[in-house]
Amino acid sequence: MTAAVKLAEAQDNLAQEMRDIGVRARAAASDLAHASTQAKNGALTAMAGHIRAGAEGILKANAQDIEAARAKGRGSAFIDRLALDQGRIEAMAEGLEAIAKLDDPVGDVIGQWERPNGLKIQRVRVPLGVIGIIYESRPNVTADAGALSLKAGNAVILRSGSESLGSARAIHACLVKGLTDAGLPEAAIQVVPSTDRAAVGAMLQGLDGAIDVIVPRGGKSLVERVQRDARVPVFGHLEGLCHVYVDRGADLAKAEAIAVNAKMRRTGICGAAETLLVDRACAKTHLKPLVTALIEAGCEVRGDSDVEAADARVKPASDADWGTEYLDAVISAKLVDGVEGAIQHIATHGSQHTDSIVTEDDAVAETFLRRVDSAIVLHNASTQFADGGEFGMGAEIGIATGKMHARGPVGVEQLTSFKYVVRGSGQTRPA
Amino acid sequence: MTAAVKLAEAQDNLAQEMRDIGVRARAAASDLAHASTQAKNGALTAMAGHIRAGAEGILKANAQDIEAARAKGRGSAFIDRLALDQGRIEAMAEGLEAIAKLDDPVGDVIGQWERPNGLKIQRVRVPLGVIGIIYESRPNVTADAGALSLKAGNAVILRSGSESLGSARAIHACLVKGLTDAGLPEAAIQVVPSTDRAAVGAMLQGLDGAIDVIVPRGGKSLVERVQRDARVPVFGHLEGLCHVYVDRGADLAKAEAIAVNAKMRRTGICGAAETLLVDRACAKTHLKPLVTALIEAGCEVRGDSDVEAADARVKPASDADWGTEYLDAVISAKLVDGVEGAIQHIATHGSQHTDSIVTEDDAVAETFLRRVDSAIVLHNASTQFADGGEFGMGAEIGIATGKMHARGPVGVEQLTSFKYVVRGSGQTRPA
Repeated sequence: MTAAVKLAEAQDNLAQEMRDIGVRARAAASDLAHASTQAKNGALTAMAGHIRAGAEGILKANAQDIEAARAKGRGSAFIDRLALDQGRIEAMAEGLEAIAKLDDPVGDVIGQWERPNGLKIQRVRVPLGVIGIIYESRPNVTADAGALSLKAGNAVILRSGSESLGSARAIHACLVKGLTDAGLPEAAIQVVPSTDRAAVGAMLQGLDGAIDVIVPRGGKSLVERVQRDARVPVFGHLEGLCHVYVDRGADLAKAEAIAVNAKMRRTGICGAAETLLVDRACAKTHLKPLVTALIEAGCEVRGDSDVEAADARVKPASDADWGTEYLDAVISAKLVDGVEGAIQHIATHGSQHTDSIVTEDDAVAETFLRRVDSAIVLHNASTQFADGGEFGMGAEIGIATGKMHARGPVGVEQLTSFKYVVRGSGQTRPA
Repeated sequence: MTAAVKLAEAQDNLAQEMRDIGVRARAAASDLAHASTQAKNGALTAMAGHIRAGAEGILKANAQDIEAARAKGRGSAFIDRLALDQGRIEAMAEGLEAIAKLDDPVGDVIGQWERPNGLKIQRVRVPLGVIGIIYESRPNVTADAGALSLKAGNAVILRSGSESLGSARAIHACLVKGLTDAGLPEAAIQVVPSTDRAAVGAMLQGLDGAIDVIVPRGGKSLVERVQRDARVPVFGHLEGLCHVYVDRGADLAKAEAIAVNAKMRRTGICGAAETLLVDRACAKTHLKPLVTALIEAGCEVRGDSDVEAADARVKPASDADWGTEYLDAVISAKLVDGVEGAIQHIATHGSQHTDSIVTEDDAVAETFLRRVDSAIVLHNASTQFADGGEFGMGAEIGIATGKMHARGPVGVEQLTSFKYVVRGSGQTRPA
């Protein structure tokens, strides 16, 4: 065979393999849609046990992944995301048990009414179907995303980053044991065995209609590719360009605490603030203390000329700074003309993720909350609350900034659809 | 200029024109998102007045459309959909007034809870943004779809079928007057002036992100193109392959009434039944009366060999019949092995639109309602109730069979998204 023929054959094989995965997922979804809560929770609890019992094997596979990643020259941040230890494995098991304890959304009646003709109409939650998850080097996503999808009655196709595939497969083997224990189909949770990037392409095309929604979990380049190329709906967000706006009506102590927490509690998460906006009307009293508090918390501040004048340690901001997600101990800062200026700045530069206003003036706060078109808007609270757990959802698979179907934290409820169930007593529709 | 250069220039002009429409729609959507209920309802009521006052001009434009369509050899069904008269214009005006009377969904609090840390979280309805509607020759869609989109706070881009464009523009002029009267942006409702099919292509690509969702209204070939080519979400359905399943527990009189109504009340709507499934266990008592009732109501019955044996007038069904949406006085019919057989048949041949079971056995009914994966499932009621008005939604823009965001009748609520509004008192997130 020539190289070209071999390549074509390999491509055909991969395409067929991916189609088969789609067919198996669709069949599993059909069963899962009617699986009992007890069976799903039983599977999740059993999975936790198998993860704990299989810790040694998981750590061995993970050690091989780490060795290979180091050999490829991957940096320490990458290795940290990839690395598992007993504590992380226990956290994974506990995560599965926590998801088992969540209410089952499937079958929930989310609305009901009766028509004058006696028809009783209900809106009832049903699973979405098949979820495709494309993620990078965090092996725990295998367990978290698999479990959350299962709880909502969906089949899931997991595409792990190639560097964590060994770990993902070891974890997956434990999940499958739990499914089998509970009598649920093995194909409820599948891991794509190929590391070929064409497998991602096939998923983005939807595997002949087998995939209902794609959730990307990873860096900007992954999410960009998914959002650009996916032919199926995507739950996710490209960037978290989150703002804290300190209004003239702000309590300074609250503003300092919120700004520092929003930026510095964790700088690498999507809900971390990237820009501080200060009302020009309170610049004299509030700007310097805010800037100082951030700098003293270890944050680099890049400001416009007004902000630069407040503290010699402020660096000049360029235009690019207003659209930069630092994910680091850096914040951009500028003065704006009141809440209207803040709304305008956020509309121009924000990413419709999470934005907060600090003020004691409720009327101004309501203007901000109504007018800022982001998935999450907050009043007198840190943007770092942008998290499914903090919202009380129990667990999330990510945060979505689109407006279709899911917006904000994507938890079990957001992984469901609904149908209308209509009960009658022989009604026919008049002409 | 050569012909090729002229063509390229025309294409560039169209592309630019469509982009401009997108930019205007996005700007209008930004204003509309915060328009008061009073302004929106005022616009809708004013539009109704302008439609009535402008009836003469609308009818004149419509007469020209009809003449051109006749000259092109369009058939009587087409002309009937296209033709307006005083009655239809009055119905359009009344439709606008009815939409004005609907509750405004924007700002509705659809969920709220408080967290242990005192954060108060609300899910609040917001508009989706910009809706693209691609329709064929029914001029009234211009008013209906424009008004429903406006009520939900969305800007809308209407792409009328080329044969009804004159009528659509005349109606649109009345809508714009209503918008202006109420101080709302004219670009809240735009009609694409070009009849070039490339304009549809541009909309399906989303106009550089300006369009959030596309709603196709028309025949199968239009919907197929939209579902195949759209790079933005689509609310719609390709086919309504609706089933009536008559179970062994069915009351025969109810079953006859429901089967005849589901098929024959109107044969051309998507909720019309296309297949009758009869439980083998009650074939002896129920099959012949059901078939006879349908035939005597003027319906052609195409059956499997069992059904053929029931009445000499039954024609043989081919395999293709189980997947055919007749939209005519024709029904396919076959025996199935109980509710499991019905569920299996519907899973194989249905279009996830609307399916009904007739039975007095509630346990069997619940199995059907739970297991049939369609947007609407009914018990002892006609499939012809698949309609937003019949559901009490006031008005609908169509029926969706996808599972993302909207499913079933698409009314004002389904044309909204939501955001999370979080009110605090200075909360920061603990490490």
